[in-house]
Amino acid sequence: MATVKLTLAYDGTEFVGWQRQASGTSIQQLLEQVFARLEGQPVTVIGAGRTDAGVHACGQVAHVSLQRDIDTATIVRAVNHHLPPSVRVLDATQMAPSFHARFDARAKRYRYRIWNQPVLNPFERLYTWHIPGPRLDVDAMATAAAVLEGTHDFAAFQTAGAETHTSERVLFLSRITADRPLITYDVRGNGFLRHMVRSIVGSLVEVGRGRYRPEWMTEVLLSKDRARGGRTAPAAGLFLVGVEYDPQRREGRETEPSPDL
Amino acid sequence: MATVKLTLAYDGTEFVGWQRQASGTSIQQLLEQVFARLEGQPVTVIGAGRTDAGVHACGQVAHVSLQRDIDTATIVRAVNHHLPPSVRVLDATQMAPSFHARFDARAKRYRYRIWNQPVLNPFERLYTWHIPGPRLDVDAMATAAAVLEGTHDFAAFQTAGAETHTSERVLFLSRITADRPLITYDVRGNGFLRHMVRSIVGSLVEVGRGRYRPEWMTEVLLSKDRARGGRTAPAAGLFLVGVEYDPQRREGRETEPSPDL
Repeated sequence: MATVKLTLAYDGTEFVGWQRQASGTSIQQLLEQVFARLEGQPVTVIGAGRTDAGVHACGQVAHVSLQRDIDTATIVRAVNHHLPPSVRVLDATQMAPSFHARFDARAKRYRYRIWNQPVLNPFERLYTWHIPGPRLDVDAMATAAAVLEGTHDFAAFQTAGAETHTSERVLFLSRITADRPLITYDVRGNGFLRHMVRSIVGSLVEVGRGRYRPEWMTEVLLSKDRARGGRTAPAAGLFLVGVEYDPQRREGRETEPSPDL
Repeated sequence: MATVKLTLAYDGTEFVGWQRQASGTSIQQLLEQVFARLEGQPVTVIGAGRTDAGVHACGQVAHVSLQRDIDTATIVRAVNHHLPPSVRVLDATQMAPSFHARFDARAKRYRYRIWNQPVLNPFERLYTWHIPGPRLDVDAMATAAAVLEGTHDFAAFQTAGAETHTSERVLFLSRITADRPLITYDVRGNGFLRHMVRSIVGSLVEVGRGRYRPEWMTEVLLSKDRARGGRTAPAAGLFLVGVEYDPQRREGRETEPSPDL
């Protein structure tokens, strides 16, 4: 019996998202099918972040408990062999049996990409939100983004109907940078509500268009009212970049720390 | 009557290449359909480089002669409106009536991208040649690539059956660089034979694998025998990056040079 942490990258374009749905193919389902084949019995794969349809990942994390003892290099090779090339296991690491990809996650990092030019680069068509014009005010967007750093009730940036007991979250980083025509929003937090990053980006773009001043972001946040902010930005621009854990969660570390730690 | 130079980018994945084929969709055909619609009669679009099926472009150039006088900004907007998002007109410029995208090209630049790591980044799956292993010897490849700079008979890197009167070409640049796991081949020349870049890359990879020393590249070149070199590298890794013309070919420049030229 082994608990294995998987680091995954996927192009979300053709999938219904991480989680199994009534129809369409999910990343979770693809992985569970491959592991079931290796194990000879049903297997559950738990992801750290339940990315929506069309959202991409370069550092999603999941865990799986296996009956058979398979070395991790073999897992990477065997699982990738059976997955479509749009989904890859980048790494597999054996963990303490109690490791849980979702509950143990301390922070997640997301990136949202905007292409702000009349003509969309064809190689970016599946990986950005295309805003042909006007030229967005990046400084105003950066000011508005910074407002969100810290501990806040993010109810204003949550899709209605989500089942969480609290909408308070901590954002360690909320930053807009630009390398024209590409505008990038990087956010790192202890957790994210449903559609939270895309709702934030939709509001930042309202500020970038000059419809509201940066201070409006504070108003939206304090209103706790989803109807006050901008539209939910499209899925294609969003990437789950990484998931962070306490380092001692790696198997064996608790009992046998290596000398240089 | 106006001759318009088009600069184009396209993701070649789903196309049969630049040129019309018996079946499948070509870039040329897509453009000719859109221009025929704008003109109300058949239109021919001539490309500088006839990229093969699956080959990409970020700077293909083509020309088209139009009966109607349409301003170039309108051409960009109208044509892109009717093209699929995988093909974009980046720029349209009115030229002297004699301008010919293919015959007037002075140089072309191509780039070939190799992903040299066991696991292929899913976002690179359509834009690189995946060589999982061994770790290619980039220094040896760079030495072999440099051998090709200058004026040579490139018959050894030409697909048989191509109809050109001479296989002599000039390479101004032939360079390998690496930003692991990505290995990039950049080449700039006065013209290219059919499959020439992909044949060169196939041979460079043989050197990178350690099957031959860099000097072998000279042997292959001098043999003028396609059978001596490596395989033709896959189309997905190849990009037509740009096409260069004499600057005075722009309309009006011959008779009315602007003061700062």
